[in-house]
Amino acid sequence: MKTTAPAITSPKGYRAAGIHCGLKKTSAPDLAMILSDVPAEVAGVYTQNLVKGHSLQRTIRLIGQQSTTRGILINSGNANACIGSIGLQDAQDTAAAAANIIGCSPDDILTCSTGVIGQRMDMQSLLLGIPVLISSLSHSQEAGHNAMNAILTTDLVAKESSAKIDIGGKRITMSGMAKGSGMIHPNLATMISVITTDASVRSPLLQELLGKAVSHTFNRVSVDGDTSVCDTLLIMANGLSGSDEIKSGTPECELFFDALTQICTDLSRMIARDGEGATKLVEVEVTGAASEQDAYLAVLAVCRSPLCKTAIFGEDANWGRILTAVGYSGASFNPEKVDIAIGGLPVCADGNALSFDEKEAKKILHKDEILITISLHEGDYSDRMWTCDFSYDYVKINGSYRS
Amino acid sequence: MKTTAPAITSPKGYRAAGIHCGLKKTSAPDLAMILSDVPAEVAGVYTQNLVKGHSLQRTIRLIGQQSTTRGILINSGNANACIGSIGLQDAQDTAAAAANIIGCSPDDILTCSTGVIGQRMDMQSLLLGIPVLISSLSHSQEAGHNAMNAILTTDLVAKESSAKIDIGGKRITMSGMAKGSGMIHPNLATMISVITTDASVRSPLLQELLGKAVSHTFNRVSVDGDTSVCDTLLIMANGLSGSDEIKSGTPECELFFDALTQICTDLSRMIARDGEGATKLVEVEVTGAASEQDAYLAVLAVCRSPLCKTAIFGEDANWGRILTAVGYSGASFNPEKVDIAIGGLPVCADGNALSFDEKEAKKILHKDEILITISLHEGDYSDRMWTCDFSYDYVKINGSYRS
Repeated sequence: MKTTAPAITSPKGYRAAGIHCGLKKTSAPDLAMILSDVPAEVAGVYTQNLVKGHSLQRTIRLIGQQSTTRGILINSGNANACIGSIGLQDAQDTAAAAANIIGCSPDDILTCSTGVIGQRMDMQSLLLGIPVLISSLSHSQEAGHNAMNAILTTDLVAKESSAKIDIGGKRITMSGMAKGSGMIHPNLATMISVITTDASVRSPLLQELLGKAVSHTFNRVSVDGDTSVCDTLLIMANGLSGSDEIKSGTPECELFFDALTQICTDLSRMIARDGEGATKLVEVEVTGAASEQDAYLAVLAVCRSPLCKTAIFGEDANWGRILTAVGYSGASFNPEKVDIAIGGLPVCADGNALSFDEKEAKKILHKDEILITISLHEGDYSDRMWTCDFSYDYVKINGSYRS
Repeated sequence: MKTTAPAITSPKGYRAAGIHCGLKKTSAPDLAMILSDVPAEVAGVYTQNLVKGHSLQRTIRLIGQQSTTRGILINSGNANACIGSIGLQDAQDTAAAAANIIGCSPDDILTCSTGVIGQRMDMQSLLLGIPVLISSLSHSQEAGHNAMNAILTTDLVAKESSAKIDIGGKRITMSGMAKGSGMIHPNLATMISVITTDASVRSPLLQELLGKAVSHTFNRVSVDGDTSVCDTLLIMANGLSGSDEIKSGTPECELFFDALTQICTDLSRMIARDGEGATKLVEVEVTGAASEQDAYLAVLAVCRSPLCKTAIFGEDANWGRILTAVGYSGASFNPEKVDIAIGGLPVCADGNALSFDEKEAKKILHKDEILITISLHEGDYSDRMWTCDFSYDYVKINGSYRS
């Protein structure tokens, strides 16, 4: 498995486009499409929020009914959420307008929306933009990057990852793109992300592998503890590599799953690193937990703690806050057995303070990637989660998001 | 029941003092004592964090063994937590030094500590300070305020509340003081607080009433979702009012409970309003929940959400974030039945956007107390919780707490 310069159009038979149609107040791109040349097997995971955006509701319904899709239409600048039945109609009309030009059924076009909640989308701008969008569709890398840029909201960087594997002598490509910076928290997927591949995999297996890959990647990112109403991760497999169909339980399936997990891991880390206002990527690892649930609760509590996250922003090795967070996490453990290290520097042993070199700690915390390891010495379970620090800019970005 | 100008020394037979002994780097007071003239019945509730400070561990053990106490020694500037067995010894030695001068058993002096975790207390400063502290003990209001000031950490204001009730022709006084500004989140008590009364109430009943009063007051405050390792709420009842003993299930007990609840409510609201970096007190109310648990989960999620709290700091009526938080709270409800109002202004009905006057909303959000009401229309349960907004200053205060 080799990671390559990524674009969502890298696998065979996918075209993409991204344009500005007018949903955002700035001139930033706000409308994207990814279209497979042939019907692709499809699977998806979605937000577990009871409140779901209208575009997402439509996509969930369609994936429940059919195993293939042609393409995905994604707009940023408006979540198309909480505006009543007109929101579902708007998603439907947008897909129909695209399908009409492409020459497929409206049900073959999935919809995703991200942005402000509770305001109707500017349908005039959208419907005028769709023909422009579709005429820009291309197999080029550049077109893939354009689509990526058009789904960003408060993100500062594009998030793309790609992998190649060989199956039965055929080269298979897989590419992923993701947006997500705030309102990021499990479960399940916590952003909008699309993965394309030219492998041949049936929808049920695709769904199973996606669910498995997500559980320890996208479901292990938290920026702020808020789970959005539009989170979606979709995967399309169009089979155009010409390779044999990948079947469950085979070595090929394992290769495919590893590539998928790698892409999900890459994108998850990129999302945490680009968290709203973030200056650092923080990886929290818990080992020696008595159960899987305990390990998860412990990493989750540290990754959610505003006190831990502001201390990291301040480059302050305040490990007491880390131990405190594990203490209230709900995980079962003996505080007198806990060891903590920051970037490999032991700061707490057996639940008690170690005297450590504060200058060395400062140097570690000044880096843009921080690893926090917590050993509970209770059992054999471990977990790991990504987050970012909590800065002035998070407050600034979110104090006036709508204006 | 009448609320009066409060001090912890208002009830009969309590002396207090607060001095600077040198635990804090500034000249702010950092050592306090509250002493009853006679042994007082005592009860307490404590943090549910698995990690507990050494001074608190000692207090929990003592209250488990004996129903009365003479006094409480509280230091700020150091949490006396996570430093190993020497921490327990330090708490013991401090209590013994005070008891020696007062002429009681060390076990008659409870200990509380709050401040930095993982550093040993400066015992020399403490032991030199204790005689000074005890020689300053006085029944005066001023001495009560001095004790209050000596337990503050990042708090900006003193938090005191008092109530008087008449029982069998005798006037009973009850007074409370509290510190708490950051690392504030249930359960159970979430700060250090002491309540004194000259009523006659036995320890077991005191414990029962305290637990009940706390469940909807101190356990309904969240500043940042972090539960500290030193949280303690203690109540002392010395009987010096001369009134009859208050027995469970009597109208007198109800009067007493109402006064206790009022004081806990006052102090809880003061803690939320004085949350680190807070500019506003936010009260979140959920009605029409299908169960008690659902109502609690819903208020909890909104009060924890950094996105809701930064929007309120920015005075932005971004109700979509409120609905989103309720959506991921774990409460069971139909999003299409939810109504939301901000300061009485309806912003969302049946889960959908209402068109509202943004200027009016801005005016409401500009106030220093904001009421958010969420109606789920699922059943008859309700709950209410206090929090504050999330500002630049929270990040500033917590980015460099130890330095």
